[in-house]
Amino acid sequence: MLGARGGWQALRRCASLPRAVRLRVREALGAREPADAVRVQGWVRSVRSQKEVLFLHINDGSSLENLQVVADPSLEKRDLTFGSAVEVQGKLVKSPHKMQNMELQAETIHVVGPCDIWSFPLKMKERHPLEYVRQFPHLRCRNNTLGSLLRIRSEATAGIHSFFQDNGYVHIHTPIITSNDCEGAGELFQIETSSEAKESAEKTHFFNVPAFLTVSGQLHLEVMAGAFTHVFTFGPTFRAENSQSRRHLAEFYMVEAELSFTESLQDIMQVMEDLFKTVTSTVLSKCPRDVELFHKYIAPAQKTKDRLEQILKHKFMIISYSEAVEILKQAPQTFVFKPEWGCDLQTEHEKYLVKYCGEVPVFVVNYPYDLKPFYMRDNEDGPQHTVAAVDLLVPGVGELCGGSLREERLPFLESRLQRLGLTDAYQWYLDLRKFGSVPHGGFGMGFERYLQYILGVDNIKDVIPFPRFSHSCLL
Amino acid sequence: MLGARGGWQALRRCASLPRAVRLRVREALGAREPADAVRVQGWVRSVRSQKEVLFLHINDGSSLENLQVVADPSLEKRDLTFGSAVEVQGKLVKSPHKMQNMELQAETIHVVGPCDIWSFPLKMKERHPLEYVRQFPHLRCRNNTLGSLLRIRSEATAGIHSFFQDNGYVHIHTPIITSNDCEGAGELFQIETSSEAKESAEKTHFFNVPAFLTVSGQLHLEVMAGAFTHVFTFGPTFRAENSQSRRHLAEFYMVEAELSFTESLQDIMQVMEDLFKTVTSTVLSKCPRDVELFHKYIAPAQKTKDRLEQILKHKFMIISYSEAVEILKQAPQTFVFKPEWGCDLQTEHEKYLVKYCGEVPVFVVNYPYDLKPFYMRDNEDGPQHTVAAVDLLVPGVGELCGGSLREERLPFLESRLQRLGLTDAYQWYLDLRKFGSVPHGGFGMGFERYLQYILGVDNIKDVIPFPRFSHSCLL
Repeated sequence: MLGARGGWQALRRCASLPRAVRLRVREALGAREPADAVRVQGWVRSVRSQKEVLFLHINDGSSLENLQVVADPSLEKRDLTFGSAVEVQGKLVKSPHKMQNMELQAETIHVVGPCDIWSFPLKMKERHPLEYVRQFPHLRCRNNTLGSLLRIRSEATAGIHSFFQDNGYVHIHTPIITSNDCEGAGELFQIETSSEAKESAEKTHFFNVPAFLTVSGQLHLEVMAGAFTHVFTFGPTFRAENSQSRRHLAEFYMVEAELSFTESLQDIMQVMEDLFKTVTSTVLSKCPRDVELFHKYIAPAQKTKDRLEQILKHKFMIISYSEAVEILKQAPQTFVFKPEWGCDLQTEHEKYLVKYCGEVPVFVVNYPYDLKPFYMRDNEDGPQHTVAAVDLLVPGVGELCGGSLREERLPFLESRLQRLGLTDAYQWYLDLRKFGSVPHGGFGMGFERYLQYILGVDNIKDVIPFPRFSHSCLL
Repeated sequence: MLGARGGWQALRRCASLPRAVRLRVREALGAREPADAVRVQGWVRSVRSQKEVLFLHINDGSSLENLQVVADPSLEKRDLTFGSAVEVQGKLVKSPHKMQNMELQAETIHVVGPCDIWSFPLKMKERHPLEYVRQFPHLRCRNNTLGSLLRIRSEATAGIHSFFQDNGYVHIHTPIITSNDCEGAGELFQIETSSEAKESAEKTHFFNVPAFLTVSGQLHLEVMAGAFTHVFTFGPTFRAENSQSRRHLAEFYMVEAELSFTESLQDIMQVMEDLFKTVTSTVLSKCPRDVELFHKYIAPAQKTKDRLEQILKHKFMIISYSEAVEILKQAPQTFVFKPEWGCDLQTEHEKYLVKYCGEVPVFVVNYPYDLKPFYMRDNEDGPQHTVAAVDLLVPGVGELCGGSLREERLPFLESRLQRLGLTDAYQWYLDLRKFGSVPHGGFGMGFERYLQYILGVDNIKDVIPFPRFSHSCLL
């Protein structure tokens, strides 16, 4: 045994012998000083062969920008094409071009993996439309737009975790497979083992009871808020809605938070607003070029960056549901759905409200009691009976966040569940109100809608890593 | 509309009027200076009423330690019991007791939510066994042990995200609903809409093809490693295995990473080892008291903290599969499964190997070709034909991580898939080898097994937020 360990340790030593320093493209581009022996690995984004000099652009996904490689034409070879993988060794020097800080003077170029350019669906220097690359879910990440999108998605994910971590929230992995449907909203996906699926007819369930994919972690988070005060989750949620629309996905990500010892709905709105602003600032400062690509080529009409920066500086607007209905009733335009107190706000209504308020994010608060699920807190008002619910509407996307104070008072909750015939199913939830129940509330934010909004992306399928329905093997 | 906005802004102003500063228990305990007007909210962990003084211990989940409240006995009331929720206002002062830094001298005590102690399953100052509290998935987080567990789980989660973020990895949300089974390992869960489930018999599928819950994000991550070089995911994975064992869950979390431009299996092992050590150091430094609770009361025989600190200081051991088999053959003990080259290592074998190596983490490398899935890289050796696979075994848990170099060479992969009759299903995966394929590899680490190992927890159900099979409504 020691022999082999010795062997592996020899390998380890070998790997640490002095040789050219490996740099990511991002590191090379950001280097302050020239360096003599540098290795860069990545994929070729362009090849330009001139009489005296060969230019390559190399990208390794660490940034939108490519590293320019300058080489002697003698280093050119047949398989050094667009899309091929290369390792270039040479000197990192200050670039004479003002568009880039550094460039690499190649001493050797090794083609690690050639690219069959005739069947490769991406073409050199072409700006492929999002609809086109969506057909190739396994290759589209090598396109600039999707590269930027996924780097932004990654930074936003990290930003969300940091925001809650920095504010003393405990992260909870709420169950994905669950027997509760949270609010009875939307069609559920049901789970069975693949052998059960084959049998059909009379069924036994793997979990003894019917099991579904979660539509929200809220109720589970409420359990945890009763112990940790501030909790959050950030995970996949599912709705079996017809997903051919540009606004819905069967599988999407949701950030959810619950807070105990709240004083008013204001506490919930404050966290929503802080979350939005903190994460957006992080993304704008960490991926400025990636965000710029979207604002320049994907949503140029919206001048989104300036708008975003304006929005980050101001308090979000707040109006009540009742005021919203009044505004809609007085609107000079006619709606397909006539605005009426007690009816849900439709997409056309949300759009008008956001426009009326100046195309900025707007909180709408205090919705009709009868429109909302059992767990929302009764405002005990009248004759227009409302609950302490809040939606955050944003331009172009509609509802970005939804939240409420939760009904913490046992008698209110008991009588509401009884009227709905849900007492047995939610016995455990009633239990929470018997043992040190406190005023609390929370909200959820759709992560893909968030990305759609800040980047101005029209189709929600273009902000997820793997679009569905287009390539069955990669579903 | 402006009227209402004015109204809400007035509320905002009101909320920011000077009043007692709200502190979390953790902040109060860690305060450097006494403070005059402080508010603390939380749940009562103990009440001790003496003739001259009333002692309370308050916990709000921000730390394992409670804040001691000292009050005049006149402040005692009927519903100020164990489990009740309170808001205490008063002066934060240096504590005369050496066990705590600060304590709160109460001026007012407000019972926010009483607790029905007769039906509350947790009792004051009792150390409930894990099996007992597992029966109450909606209340057990208010028990010390589970409180500590979930804080540690949260810190470890944050630590994993930071580790990869700091090392230039792009985070990818790999699909949860998928049509690929990755390796054909383990029974799958199948998905259907709940209306489909009711119909039975002839089925149409929501996604047109049968859809399953993911068993691994590896293949999707490989796609992304071909664009971003370094990628990771950290999400739920599913196996429809009988989950009554103490080592398996139907739903569990997995950290997975893929790296392009690898030079040897060593590159993969280095990331596994760095990940383990970095996250464990983070947890030990961020939640020392929470970890101590486990090492003191849950796994005292293992003296786990000293062991862990030793392990963090040394390189992990490495042996080859072939050496492992030799060690097992020469073992003085008899195994149920006779060790033989070409057979899987059983739990009893893994245990012996770890013990033989001194109860430390051990990498086992280069497994038989015929034992491993199609995507693992052929070592082209013989007569004992192996692939570049690696498992990390740890004491008490067995396999913690598994990884490999992936077969990047098109001809090798083509012929292997053809022999297995999988060419059609994996056409997209073959594609990746045609367009700039590079040497690459990756690994997965079971998050729950990681927690089991560092904390010495025997049953895997005790390291998840909501244990299954015990309370159907909270499944």
